[in-house]
Amino acid sequence: MEKLKKEIENWISEHFKDKGSYNKRVYEAITYSLDAGGKRIRPLLFLLTYMLKNNNYKSVLPVAAAIELIHTYSLIHDDLPCMDNDDLRRGKPTNHKVFGEAIAVLAGDGLLNEAMNIMFRYCIDNDKNAIRACSLISESAGIEGMVGGQTVDILSENTKIPIDQLYYMHSKKTGALIKAAIVAGAILGGSTEEDVKKLDYYGQKLGLAFQIKDDILDIVGDTEVLGKKAKSDLDNNKTTFITTYGLNKCMEMCNSLTSECVEVLDKVEGDTSRLKEITLFLLNREK
Amino acid sequence: MEKLKKEIENWISEHFKDKGSYNKRVYEAITYSLDAGGKRIRPLLFLLTYMLKNNNYKSVLPVAAAIELIHTYSLIHDDLPCMDNDDLRRGKPTNHKVFGEAIAVLAGDGLLNEAMNIMFRYCIDNDKNAIRACSLISESAGIEGMVGGQTVDILSENTKIPIDQLYYMHSKKTGALIKAAIVAGAILGGSTEEDVKKLDYYGQKLGLAFQIKDDILDIVGDTEVLGKKAKSDLDNNKTTFITTYGLNKCMEMCNSLTSECVEVLDKVEGDTSRLKEITLFLLNREK
Repeated sequence: MEKLKKEIENWISEHFKDKGSYNKRVYEAITYSLDAGGKRIRPLLFLLTYMLKNNNYKSVLPVAAAIELIHTYSLIHDDLPCMDNDDLRRGKPTNHKVFGEAIAVLAGDGLLNEAMNIMFRYCIDNDKNAIRACSLISESAGIEGMVGGQTVDILSENTKIPIDQLYYMHSKKTGALIKAAIVAGAILGGSTEEDVKKLDYYGQKLGLAFQIKDDILDIVGDTEVLGKKAKSDLDNNKTTFITTYGLNKCMEMCNSLTSECVEVLDKVEGDTSRLKEITLFLLNREK
Repeated sequence: MEKLKKEIENWISEHFKDKGSYNKRVYEAITYSLDAGGKRIRPLLFLLTYMLKNNNYKSVLPVAAAIELIHTYSLIHDDLPCMDNDDLRRGKPTNHKVFGEAIAVLAGDGLLNEAMNIMFRYCIDNDKNAIRACSLISESAGIEGMVGGQTVDILSENTKIPIDQLYYMHSKKTGALIKAAIVAGAILGGSTEEDVKKLDYYGQKLGLAFQIKDDILDIVGDTEVLGKKAKSDLDNNKTTFITTYGLNKCMEMCNSLTSECVEVLDKVEGDTSRLKEITLFLLNREK
Protein backbone atom coordinates (compact mmCIF):
# COMPACT_ATOMS: atom_id res chain seq x y z
CA MET A 1 0.00 0.00 0.00
CA GLU A 2 2.83 2.41 0.91
CA LYS A 3 4.47 1.57 -2.41
CA LEU A 4 1.30 2.44 -4.34
CA LYS A 5 0.92 5.68 -2.44
CA LYS A 6 4.50 6.62 -3.32
CA GLU A 7 3.88 5.79 -6.97
CA ILE A 8 0.87 8.10 -7.06
CA GLU A 9 2.85 10.86 -5.38
CA ASN A 10 5.81 10.39 -7.70
CA TRP A 11 3.58 10.52 -10.78
CA ILE A 12 2.08 13.80 -9.56
CA SER A 13 5.49 15.30 -8.69
CA GLU A 14 6.88 14.36 -12.09
CA HIS A 15 3.82 15.76 -13.82
CA PHE A 16 4.21 19.21 -12.28
CA LYS A 17 8.01 19.30 -12.30
CA ASP A 18 9.65 22.38 -13.84
CA LYS A 19 6.34 23.69 -15.10
CA GLY A 20 5.35 27.28 -15.66
CA SER A 21 6.78 30.55 -16.86
CA TYR A 22 4.93 33.79 -16.14
CA ASN A 23 2.24 31.64 -14.49
CA LYS A 24 4.72 29.97 -12.11
CA ARG A 25 2.97 31.26 -9.00
CA VAL A 26 -0.14 29.17 -9.62
CA TYR A 27 2.02 26.05 -10.01
CA GLU A 28 3.65 26.87 -6.66
CA ALA A 29 0.22 27.12 -5.05
CA ILE A 30 -0.86 23.86 -6.65
CA THR A 31 2.19 21.88 -5.59
CA TYR A 32 2.01 23.39 -2.10
CA SER A 33 -1.38 21.75 -1.57
CA LEU A 34 -0.52 18.53 -3.39
CA ASP A 35 2.66 18.11 -1.34
CA ALA A 36 0.95 18.81 1.99
CA GLY A 37 0.43 15.10 2.58
CA GLY A 38 -2.89 13.36 2.81
CA LYS A 39 -3.94 9.75 2.91
CA ARG A 40 -4.42 9.48 -0.90
CA ILE A 41 -7.42 7.27 -0.12
CA ARG A 42 -9.31 7.95 -3.34
CA PRO A 43 -6.52 7.12 -5.81
CA LEU A 44 -5.56 4.11 -3.65
CA LEU A 45 -9.13 2.79 -3.75
CA PHE A 46 -9.10 3.31 -7.51
CA LEU A 47 -5.84 1.40 -7.97
CA LEU A 48 -6.80 -1.43 -5.61
CA THR A 49 -10.12 -1.96 -7.37
CA TYR A 50 -8.36 -1.85 -10.74
CA MET A 51 -5.90 -4.46 -9.48
CA LEU A 52 -8.63 -6.98 -8.69
CA LYS A 53 -8.40 -8.14 -12.28
CA ASN A 54 -5.35 -6.40 -13.66
CA ASN A 55 -1.83 -6.00 -12.33
CA ASN A 56 -0.54 -3.49 -14.83
CA TYR A 57 -1.50 -0.50 -12.70
CA LYS A 58 1.23 1.79 -14.07
CA SER A 59 -0.87 2.49 -17.15
CA VAL A 60 -3.72 3.88 -15.04
CA LEU A 61 -1.59 6.05 -12.74
CA PRO A 62 -2.64 9.17 -14.70
CA VAL A 63 -6.29 8.51 -13.80
CA ALA A 64 -5.34 7.87 -10.15
CA ALA A 65 -3.51 11.20 -10.13
CA ALA A 66 -6.48 12.99 -11.73
CA ILE A 67 -8.68 11.74 -8.88
CA GLU A 68 -6.27 13.13 -6.28
CA LEU A 69 -6.09 16.47 -8.15
CA ILE A 70 -9.89 16.76 -8.03
CA HIS A 71 -9.87 16.01 -4.31
CA THR A 72 -7.15 18.61 -3.68
CA TYR A 73 -8.98 21.29 -5.70
CA SER A 74 -12.09 20.71 -3.59
CA LEU A 75 -10.13 21.14 -0.35
CA ILE A 76 -8.60 24.44 -1.53
CA HIS A 77 -11.98 25.89 -2.54
CA ASP A 78 -13.79 24.54 0.54
CA ASP A 79 -11.23 26.23 2.81
CA LEU A 80 -11.71 29.70 1.21
CA PRO A 81 -12.85 32.54 3.48
CA CYS A 82 -16.21 32.70 1.65
CA MET A 83 -16.72 28.95 2.25
CA ASP A 84 -15.57 27.28 5.48
CA ASN A 85 -12.89 29.89 6.16
CA ASP A 86 -10.34 27.40 7.46
CA ASP A 87 -6.78 28.39 8.34
CA LEU A 88 -5.33 24.92 8.79
CA ARG A 89 -5.27 21.87 6.53
CA ARG A 90 -3.09 18.80 6.92
CA GLY A 91 -1.23 20.63 9.67
CA LYS A 92 -0.23 23.53 7.43
CA PRO A 93 -1.72 26.95 6.67
CA THR A 94 -4.44 26.65 4.02
CA ASN A 95 -3.67 27.62 0.44
CA HIS A 96 -5.25 31.09 0.57
CA LYS A 97 -3.39 31.85 3.82
CA VAL A 98 -0.10 31.40 1.97
CA PHE A 99 -0.91 32.52 -1.58
CA GLY A 100 -3.88 34.83 -1.13
CA GLU A 101 -7.48 34.24 -2.16
CA ALA A 102 -7.12 35.01 -5.86
CA ILE A 103 -4.31 32.53 -6.43
CA ALA A 104 -6.08 29.95 -4.25
CA VAL A 105 -9.21 30.18 -6.42
CA LEU A 106 -7.03 29.85 -9.53
CA ALA A 107 -5.04 26.95 -8.05
CA GLY A 108 -8.33 25.13 -7.45
CA ASP A 109 -9.61 25.92 -10.94
CA GLY A 110 -6.28 24.83 -12.39
CA LEU A 111 -6.27 21.52 -10.50
CA LEU A 112 -9.81 20.62 -11.55
CA ASN A 113 -9.00 21.54 -15.13
CA GLU A 114 -5.68 19.67 -15.15
CA ALA A 115 -7.45 16.55 -13.87
CA MET A 116 -9.70 16.74 -16.91
CA ASN A 117 -6.74 17.39 -19.25
CA ILE A 118 -5.01 14.29 -17.90
CA MET A 119 -8.15 12.21 -18.35
CA PHE A 120 -8.81 13.42 -21.91
CA ARG A 121 -5.21 12.62 -22.83
CA TYR A 122 -5.62 9.19 -21.26
CA CYS A 123 -8.77 8.63 -23.33
CA ILE A 124 -7.00 9.45 -26.61
CA ASP A 125 -4.77 6.41 -26.14
CA ASN A 126 -7.39 4.04 -24.75
CA ASP A 127 -10.74 2.40 -25.47
CA LYS A 128 -14.39 3.20 -24.73
CA ASN A 129 -14.07 1.89 -21.17
CA ALA A 130 -11.53 4.63 -20.52
CA ILE A 131 -14.03 7.30 -21.58
CA ARG A 132 -16.76 5.64 -19.51
CA ALA A 133 -14.54 5.60 -16.41
CA CYS A 134 -13.29 9.18 -16.86
CA SER A 135 -16.81 10.39 -17.53
CA LEU A 136 -17.96 8.85 -14.23
CA ILE A 137 -15.13 10.54 -12.34
CA SER A 138 -15.91 13.87 -13.99
CA GLU A 139 -19.63 13.58 -13.18
CA SER A 140 -18.89 12.76 -9.54
CA ALA A 141 -17.09 16.09 -9.14
CA GLY A 142 -19.86 18.17 -10.69
CA ILE A 143 -23.12 19.90 -9.81
CA GLU A 144 -24.83 16.57 -9.14
CA GLY A 145 -21.77 15.48 -7.18
CA MET A 146 -19.21 17.33 -5.09
CA VAL A 147 -20.24 20.84 -6.16
CA GLY A 148 -23.86 20.03 -5.30
CA GLY A 149 -22.87 18.62 -1.91
CA GLN A 150 -20.74 21.62 -1.05
CA THR A 151 -23.61 23.92 -2.11
CA VAL A 152 -25.94 22.23 0.36
CA ASP A 153 -23.22 22.29 3.02
CA ILE A 154 -22.78 26.07 2.62
CA LEU A 155 -26.53 26.73 2.60
CA SER A 156 -27.01 24.55 5.70
CA GLU A 157 -24.76 26.51 8.01
CA ASN A 158 -26.59 27.73 11.09
CA THR A 159 -29.71 25.75 10.21
CA LYS A 160 -30.96 22.42 11.39
CA ILE A 161 -31.45 20.30 8.26
CA PRO A 162 -33.59 17.16 7.89
CA ILE A 163 -31.98 13.70 7.75
CA ASP A 164 -32.68 13.28 4.01
CA GLN A 165 -30.80 16.44 3.27
CA LEU A 166 -27.89 15.41 5.51
CA TYR A 167 -27.54 12.13 3.61
CA TYR A 168 -27.87 13.94 0.28
CA MET A 169 -25.16 16.40 1.26
CA HIS A 170 -22.62 13.79 2.28
CA SER A 171 -23.34 11.29 -0.46
CA LYS A 172 -22.48 14.10 -2.89
CA LYS A 173 -19.78 16.03 -1.09
CA THR A 174 -17.66 13.11 0.12
CA GLY A 175 -19.31 9.96 -1.19
CA ALA A 176 -19.48 10.73 -4.89
CA LEU A 177 -15.75 10.84 -5.65
CA ILE A 178 -15.00 7.85 -3.40
CA LYS A 179 -17.63 5.78 -5.18
CA ALA A 180 -16.54 7.01 -8.62
CA ALA A 181 -12.90 6.12 -7.89
CA ILE A 182 -13.93 2.57 -6.95
CA VAL A 183 -16.30 2.04 -9.87
CA ALA A 184 -13.90 3.60 -12.40
CA GLY A 185 -11.16 1.27 -11.16
CA ALA A 186 -13.43 -1.73 -11.59
CA ILE A 187 -14.45 -0.70 -15.12
CA LEU A 188 -10.88 -0.05 -16.26
CA GLY A 189 -9.57 -3.19 -14.62
CA GLY A 190 -12.10 -5.36 -16.42
CA SER A 191 -14.39 -6.47 -13.58
CA THR A 192 -17.66 -8.08 -14.68
CA GLU A 193 -20.75 -5.82 -14.83
CA GLU A 194 -22.09 -7.76 -11.86
CA ASP A 195 -18.96 -7.01 -9.82
CA VAL A 196 -19.05 -3.37 -10.92
CA LYS A 197 -22.54 -3.17 -9.37
CA LYS A 198 -21.35 -4.81 -6.15
CA LEU A 199 -18.40 -2.44 -5.96
CA ASP A 200 -20.72 0.49 -6.59
CA TYR A 201 -22.68 -0.59 -3.51
CA TYR A 202 -19.43 -1.04 -1.56
CA GLY A 203 -18.42 2.49 -2.61
CA GLN A 204 -21.67 3.95 -1.34
CA LYS A 205 -21.37 2.30 2.05
CA LEU A 206 -17.69 3.09 2.39
CA GLY A 207 -18.30 6.75 1.53
CA LEU A 208 -20.97 6.97 4.18
CA ALA A 209 -18.81 5.26 6.81
CA PHE A 210 -15.99 7.64 5.87
CA GLN A 211 -18.14 10.71 6.46
CA ILE A 212 -19.61 9.49 9.74
CA LYS A 213 -16.06 8.77 10.92
CA ASP A 214 -15.09 12.30 9.86
CA ASP A 215 -17.92 13.72 11.97
CA ILE A 216 -16.83 11.56 14.92
CA LEU A 217 -13.22 12.75 14.58
CA ASP A 218 -14.36 16.35 14.42
CA ILE A 219 -15.80 15.87 17.92
CA VAL A 220 -13.36 13.47 19.61
CA GLY A 221 -10.25 14.33 17.59
CA ASP A 222 -7.43 16.69 18.34
CA THR A 223 -6.47 19.64 16.14
CA GLU A 224 -2.83 18.62 16.21
CA VAL A 225 -3.47 15.02 15.15
CA LEU A 226 -6.19 15.93 12.63
CA GLY A 227 -4.06 18.61 10.99
CA LYS A 228 -7.21 20.70 10.71
CA LYS A 229 -9.32 22.50 13.25
CA ALA A 230 -11.27 20.12 15.53
CA LYS A 231 -14.86 20.92 16.48
CA SER A 232 -15.21 23.14 13.40
CA ASP A 233 -18.66 21.65 12.69
CA LEU A 234 -19.79 22.77 16.13
CA ASP A 235 -18.33 26.24 15.56
CA ASN A 236 -20.05 26.52 12.19
CA ASN A 237 -23.29 25.31 13.74
CA LYS A 238 -23.60 22.48 11.24
CA THR A 239 -26.01 19.60 11.26
CA THR A 240 -23.85 16.46 11.33
CA PHE A 241 -24.36 12.76 11.93
CA ILE A 242 -23.33 13.47 15.53
CA THR A 243 -25.95 16.18 16.12
CA THR A 244 -28.51 13.91 14.46
CA TYR A 245 -27.76 10.51 15.98
CA GLY A 246 -25.36 11.17 18.88
CA LEU A 247 -21.82 9.84 19.25
CA ASN A 248 -22.57 6.26 20.35
CA LYS A 249 -25.03 5.57 17.58
CA CYS A 250 -22.56 7.02 15.06
CA MET A 251 -19.81 4.66 16.23
CA GLU A 252 -22.25 1.78 15.91
CA MET A 253 -23.24 2.86 12.39
CA CYS A 254 -19.60 3.11 11.38
CA ASN A 255 -18.89 -0.41 12.61
CA SER A 256 -21.91 -1.89 10.95
CA LEU A 257 -21.26 -0.13 7.61
CA THR A 258 -17.70 -1.40 7.69
CA SER A 259 -18.90 -4.97 8.24
CA GLU A 260 -21.29 -4.58 5.36
CA CYS A 261 -18.40 -3.36 3.17
CA VAL A 262 -16.32 -6.39 4.03
CA GLU A 263 -19.24 -8.72 3.30
CA VAL A 264 -19.70 -7.20 -0.16
CA LEU A 265 -15.98 -7.55 -0.86
CA ASP A 266 -16.24 -11.25 0.02
CA LYS A 267 -18.60 -11.69 -2.93
CA VAL A 268 -16.36 -9.95 -5.48
CA GLU A 269 -13.99 -11.83 -7.81
CA GLY A 270 -10.25 -11.37 -7.28
CA ASP A 271 -8.10 -10.82 -4.21
CA THR A 272 -9.95 -8.23 -2.13
CA SER A 273 -7.66 -8.44 0.90
CA ARG A 274 -6.08 -5.05 0.36
CA LEU A 275 -9.45 -3.39 -0.17
CA LYS A 276 -10.53 -4.91 3.14
CA GLU A 277 -7.38 -3.62 4.77
CA ILE A 278 -8.04 -0.06 3.61
CA THR A 279 -11.71 -0.34 4.65
CA LEU A 280 -10.68 -1.26 8.21
CA PHE A 281 -7.96 1.37 8.20
CA LEU A 282 -10.59 4.03 7.44
CA LEU A 283 -12.72 2.79 10.35
CA ASN A 284 -9.87 2.93 12.81
CA ARG A 285 -8.06 6.04 11.62
CA GLU A 286 -7.37 8.91 13.98
CA LYS A 287 -7.24 11.63 11.35
CA MET B 1 -25.91 33.65 -37.49
CA GLU B 2 -28.81 34.70 -35.23
CA LYS B 3 -30.35 31.28 -35.81
CA LEU B 4 -27.16 29.52 -34.72
CA LYS B 5 -26.90 31.72 -31.64
CA LYS B 6 -30.48 30.83 -30.72
CA GLU B 7 -29.76 27.13 -31.19
CA ILE B 8 -26.82 27.32 -28.81
CA GLU B 9 -28.89 29.19 -26.25
CA ASN B 10 -31.79 26.75 -26.58
CA TRP B 11 -29.50 23.77 -26.13
CA ILE B 12 -28.11 25.31 -22.95
CA SER B 13 -31.58 26.20 -21.61
CA GLU B 14 -32.87 22.71 -22.26
CA HIS B 15 -29.80 21.20 -20.66
CA PHE B 16 -30.32 23.01 -17.37
CA LYS B 17 -34.13 22.91 -17.36
CA ASP B 18 -35.80 21.61 -14.19
CA LYS B 19 -32.50 20.54 -12.71
CA GLY B 20 -31.59 20.35 -9.06
CA SER B 21 -33.07 19.40 -5.73
CA TYR B 22 -31.33 20.44 -2.52
CA ASN B 23 -28.63 21.97 -4.74
CA LYS B 24 -31.12 24.12 -6.69
CA ARG B 25 -29.46 27.37 -5.62
CA VAL B 26 -26.30 26.66 -7.58
CA TYR B 27 -28.37 25.95 -10.72
CA GLU B 28 -30.09 29.31 -10.23
CA ALA B 29 -26.72 31.04 -10.04
CA ILE B 30 -25.50 29.17 -13.12
CA THR B 31 -28.54 29.97 -15.26
CA TYR B 32 -28.48 33.59 -14.06
CA SER B 33 -25.06 34.05 -15.65
CA LEU B 34 -25.78 31.93 -18.73
CA ASP B 35 -29.00 33.86 -19.40
CA ALA B 36 -27.39 37.27 -18.95
CA GLY B 37 -26.78 37.54 -22.69
CA GLY B 38 -23.42 37.71 -24.35
CA LYS B 39 -22.29 37.51 -27.94
CA ARG B 40 -21.71 33.72 -27.86
CA ILE B 41 -18.67 34.38 -30.05
CA ARG B 42 -16.72 31.28 -29.04
CA PRO B 43 -19.42 28.67 -29.72
CA LEU B 44 -20.35 30.52 -32.93
CA LEU B 45 -16.75 30.40 -34.14
CA PHE B 46 -16.69 26.70 -33.29
CA LEU B 47 -19.90 25.98 -35.23
CA LEU B 48 -18.92 28.11 -38.24
CA THR B 49 -15.55 26.41 -38.52
CA TYR B 50 -17.21 23.03 -38.16
CA MET B 51 -19.64 23.97 -40.94
CA LEU B 52 -16.85 24.62 -43.44
CA LYS B 53 -16.96 20.93 -44.29
CA ASN B 54 -20.04 19.63 -42.51
CA ASN B 55 -23.60 20.89 -42.31
CA ASN B 56 -24.90 18.59 -39.62
CA TYR B 57 -24.08 21.03 -36.82
CA LYS B 58 -26.82 19.77 -34.48
CA SER B 59 -24.68 16.83 -33.46
CA VAL B 60 -21.91 19.14 -32.19
CA LEU B 61 -24.15 21.57 -30.28
CA PRO B 62 -23.13 19.91 -26.98
CA VAL B 63 -19.49 20.84 -27.63
CA ALA B 64 -20.51 24.39 -28.61
CA ALA B 65 -22.44 24.66 -25.34
CA ALA B 66 -19.48 23.30 -23.35
CA ILE B 67 -17.31 26.08 -24.79
CA GLU B 68 -19.83 28.74 -23.69
CA LEU B 69 -20.03 27.17 -20.22
CA ILE B 70 -16.25 27.41 -19.84
CA HIS B 71 -16.35 31.06 -20.93
CA THR B 72 -19.15 31.84 -18.45
CA TYR B 73 -17.34 30.12 -15.57
CA SER B 74 -14.28 32.25 -16.25
CA LEU B 75 -16.33 35.46 -16.16
CA ILE B 76 -17.91 34.53 -12.80
CA HIS B 77 -14.56 33.74 -11.18
CA ASP B 78 -12.79 36.74 -12.77
CA ASP B 79 -15.44 39.08 -11.33
CA LEU B 80 -15.02 37.81 -7.74
CA PRO B 81 -14.01 40.34 -5.07
CA CYS B 82 -10.62 38.63 -4.68
CA MET B 83 -10.02 38.89 -8.45
CA ASP B 84 -11.19 41.95 -10.44
CA ASN B 85 -13.96 42.79 -7.95
CA ASP B 86 -16.49 43.78 -10.62
CA ASP B 87 -20.09 44.66 -9.79
CA LEU B 88 -21.47 44.76 -13.32
CA ARG B 89 -21.36 42.23 -16.16
CA ARG B 90 -23.49 42.30 -19.32
CA GLY B 91 -25.49 45.14 -17.78
CA LYS B 92 -26.47 43.15 -14.70
CA PRO B 93 -25.06 42.73 -11.20
CA THR B 94 -22.28 40.15 -11.20
CA ASN B 95 -22.98 36.63 -9.93
CA HIS B 96 -21.51 37.11 -6.46
CA LYS B 97 -23.45 40.36 -6.03
CA VAL B 98 -26.69 38.39 -6.39
CA PHE B 99 -25.81 34.97 -4.94
CA GLY B 100 -22.91 35.73 -2.61
CA GLU B 101 -19.29 34.74 -3.01
CA ALA B 102 -19.57 31.11 -1.92
CA ILE B 103 -22.30 30.25 -4.42
CA ALA B 104 -20.51 32.24 -7.14
CA VAL B 105 -17.33 30.18 -6.63
CA LEU B 106 -19.42 27.00 -6.74
CA ALA B 107 -21.38 28.16 -9.81
CA GLY B 108 -18.05 28.69 -11.60
CA ASP B 109 -16.72 25.32 -10.47
CA GLY B 110 -19.98 23.68 -11.51
CA LEU B 111 -19.94 25.28 -14.96
CA LEU B 112 -16.35 24.25 -15.68
CA ASN B 113 -17.10 20.74 -14.46
CA GLU B 114 -20.36 20.46 -16.41
CA ALA B 115 -18.55 21.53 -19.59
CA MET B 116 -16.23 18.56 -19.07
CA ASN B 117 -19.14 16.21 -18.29
CA ILE B 118 -20.83 17.23 -21.54
CA MET B 119 -17.61 16.68 -23.50
CA PHE B 120 -16.90 13.26 -21.95
CA ARG B 121 -20.46 12.17 -22.76
CA TYR B 122 -19.99 13.45 -26.30
CA CYS B 123 -16.78 11.42 -26.58
CA ILE B 124 -18.50 8.19 -25.53
CA ASP B 125 -20.66 8.33 -28.65
CA ASN B 126 -18.02 9.57 -31.07
CA ASP B 127 -14.61 8.81 -32.56
CA LYS B 128 -11.01 9.71 -31.75
CA ASN B 129 -11.38 13.13 -33.37
CA ALA B 130 -14.00 13.95 -30.76
CA ILE B 131 -11.54 13.20 -27.95
CA ARG B 132 -8.84 15.17 -29.73
CA ALA B 133 -11.13 18.20 -30.09
CA CYS B 134 -12.45 18.04 -26.52
CA SER B 135 -8.95 17.57 -25.17
CA LEU B 136 -7.83 20.76 -26.98
CA ILE B 137 -10.75 22.72 -25.52
CA SER B 138 -10.02 21.38 -22.04
CA GLU B 139 -6.31 22.26 -22.33
CA SER B 140 -7.13 25.79 -23.46
CA ALA B 141 -9.02 26.44 -20.23
CA GLY B 142 -6.26 25.15 -17.95
CA ILE B 143 -3.09 26.27 -16.24
CA GLU B 144 -1.29 26.68 -19.57
CA GLY B 145 -4.38 28.47 -20.91
CA MET B 146 -7.04 30.64 -19.31
CA VAL B 147 -6.07 29.91 -15.70
CA GLY B 148 -2.46 30.80 -16.49
CA GLY B 149 -3.50 34.02 -18.22
CA GLN B 150 -5.72 35.09 -15.35
CA THR B 151 -2.89 34.31 -12.91
CA VAL B 152 -0.57 36.68 -14.75
CA ASP B 153 -3.36 39.26 -14.98
CA ILE B 154 -3.89 39.18 -11.20
CA LEU B 155 -0.16 39.32 -10.45
CA SER B 156 0.29 42.22 -12.88
CA GLU B 157 -2.07 44.65 -11.20
CA ASN B 158 -0.35 47.87 -10.24
CA THR B 159 2.83 46.88 -12.04
CA LYS B 160 4.14 47.79 -15.44
CA ILE B 161 4.77 44.52 -17.25
CA PRO B 162 7.01 43.95 -20.28
CA ILE B 163 5.48 43.45 -23.74
CA ASP B 164 6.30 39.72 -23.82
CA GLN B 165 4.35 39.19 -20.65
CA LEU B 166 1.42 41.26 -21.95
CA TYR B 167 1.21 39.07 -25.06
CA TYR B 168 1.57 35.93 -22.95
CA MET B 169 -1.23 37.03 -20.64
CA HIS B 170 -3.72 37.75 -23.41
CA SER B 171 -2.86 34.83 -25.63
CA LYS B 172 -3.71 32.63 -22.64
CA LYS B 173 -6.52 34.52 -20.94
CA THR B 174 -8.60 35.40 -24.01
CA GLY B 175 -6.83 33.89 -26.99
CA ALA B 176 -6.58 30.27 -25.88
CA LEU B 177 -10.30 29.42 -25.80
CA ILE B 178 -11.03 31.37 -29.00
CA LYS B 179 -8.30 29.48 -30.83
CA ALA B 180 -9.33 26.13 -29.33
CA ALA B 181 -12.96 26.69 -30.38
CA ILE B 182 -11.87 27.34 -33.95
CA VAL B 183 -9.41 24.44 -34.16
CA ALA B 184 -11.79 22.00 -32.46
CA GLY B 185 -14.52 22.96 -34.95
CA ALA B 186 -12.15 22.32 -37.84
CA ILE B 187 -11.07 18.93 -36.47
CA LEU B 188 -14.63 17.75 -35.81
CA GLY B 189 -15.90 19.08 -39.13
CA GLY B 190 -13.28 17.16 -41.06
CA SER B 191 -11.01 19.93 -42.36
CA THR B 192 -7.68 18.79 -43.77
CA GLU B 193 -4.66 18.93 -41.44
CA GLU B 194 -3.33 21.74 -43.59
CA ASP B 195 -6.52 23.76 -43.11
CA VAL B 196 -6.50 23.00 -39.39
CA LYS B 197 -3.06 24.63 -39.26
CA LYS B 198 -4.27 27.68 -41.18
CA LEU B 199 -7.29 28.00 -38.93
CA ASP B 200 -5.04 27.69 -35.88
CA TYR B 201 -3.13 30.71 -37.19
CA TYR B 202 -6.41 32.52 -37.91
CA GLY B 203 -7.51 31.77 -34.33
CA GLN B 204 -4.31 33.25 -32.90
CA LYS B 205 -4.64 36.47 -34.86
CA LEU B 206 -8.36 36.77 -34.18
CA GLY B 207 -7.84 36.27 -30.45
CA LEU B 208 -5.22 38.99 -30.40
CA ALA B 209 -7.43 41.40 -32.40
CA PHE B 210 -10.28 40.60 -30.00
CA GLN B 211 -8.22 41.51 -26.95
CA ILE B 212 -6.80 44.72 -28.42
CA LYS B 213 -10.36 45.74 -29.33
CA ASP B 214 -11.40 44.97 -25.74
CA ASP B 215 -8.66 47.27 -24.46
CA ILE B 216 -9.78 49.98 -26.89
CA LEU B 217 -13.40 49.65 -25.77
CA ASP B 218 -12.36 49.84 -22.14
CA ILE B 219 -11.00 53.33 -22.90
CA VAL B 220 -13.42 54.73 -25.49
CA GLY B 221 -16.49 52.70 -24.54
CA ASP B 222 -19.39 53.60 -22.34
CA THR B 223 -20.37 51.62 -19.21
CA GLU B 224 -23.98 51.52 -20.33
CA VAL B 225 -23.22 50.15 -23.80
CA LEU B 226 -20.47 47.81 -22.59
CA GLY B 227 -22.63 46.37 -19.83
CA LYS B 228 -19.51 46.34 -17.66
CA LYS B 229 -17.50 49.09 -16.04
CA ALA B 230 -15.58 51.19 -18.56
CA LYS B 231 -12.03 52.32 -17.77
CA SER B 232 -11.66 49.47 -15.27
CA ASP B 233 -8.17 48.71 -16.59
CA LEU B 234 -7.15 52.27 -15.75
CA ASP B 235 -8.68 51.97 -12.29
CA ASN B 236 -6.90 48.68 -11.67
CA ASN B 237 -3.67 50.18 -12.92
CA LYS B 238 -3.21 47.47 -15.51
CA THR B 239 -0.71 47.31 -18.33
CA THR B 240 -2.80 47.04 -21.51
CA PHE B 241 -2.18 47.32 -25.24
CA ILE B 242 -3.33 50.94 -24.88
CA THR B 243 -0.81 51.83 -22.17
CA THR B 244 1.85 50.04 -24.21
CA TYR B 245 1.15 51.25 -27.76
CA GLY B 246 -1.35 54.12 -27.41
CA LEU B 247 -4.85 54.28 -28.86
CA ASN B 248 -4.04 55.06 -32.51
CA LYS B 249 -1.46 52.33 -32.89
CA CYS B 250 -3.93 49.87 -31.28
CA MET B 251 -6.64 50.74 -33.80
CA GLU B 252 -4.12 50.24 -36.59
CA MET B 253 -3.06 46.87 -35.15
CA CYS B 254 -6.68 45.78 -34.91
CA ASN B 255 -7.32 46.66 -38.55
CA SER B 256 -4.21 44.97 -39.80
CA LEU B 257 -4.83 41.79 -37.76
CA THR B 258 -8.36 41.66 -39.12
CA SER B 259 -7.07 41.93 -42.69
CA GLU B 260 -4.62 39.15 -41.99
CA CYS B 261 -7.48 37.00 -40.65
CA VAL B 262 -9.51 37.54 -43.81
CA GLU B 263 -6.51 36.68 -45.97
CA VAL B 264 -6.01 33.38 -44.15
CA LEU B 265 -9.69 32.54 -44.53
CA ASP B 266 -9.36 33.11 -48.29
CA LYS B 267 -6.92 30.20 -48.41
CA VAL B 268 -9.14 27.75 -46.50
CA GLU B 269 -11.39 25.19 -48.22
CA GLY B 270 -15.15 25.67 -47.90
CA ASP B 271 -17.39 28.72 -47.68
CA THR B 272 -15.68 31.07 -45.24
CA SER B 273 -18.04 34.02 -45.77
CA ARG B 274 -19.69 33.73 -42.38
CA LEU B 275 -16.35 33.43 -40.61
CA LYS B 276 -15.30 36.62 -42.40
CA GLU B 277 -18.52 38.29 -41.32
CA ILE B 278 -17.94 37.45 -37.65
CA THR B 279 -14.28 38.56 -37.95
CA LEU B 280 -15.37 42.00 -39.22
CA PHE B 281 -18.18 42.15 -36.66
CA LEU B 282 -15.61 41.70 -33.88
CA LEU B 283 -13.50 44.54 -35.31
CA ASN B 284 -16.45 46.94 -35.47
CA ARG B 285 -18.30 45.97 -32.28
CA GLU B 286 -19.11 48.56 -29.67
CA LYS B 287 -19.27 46.15 -26.74
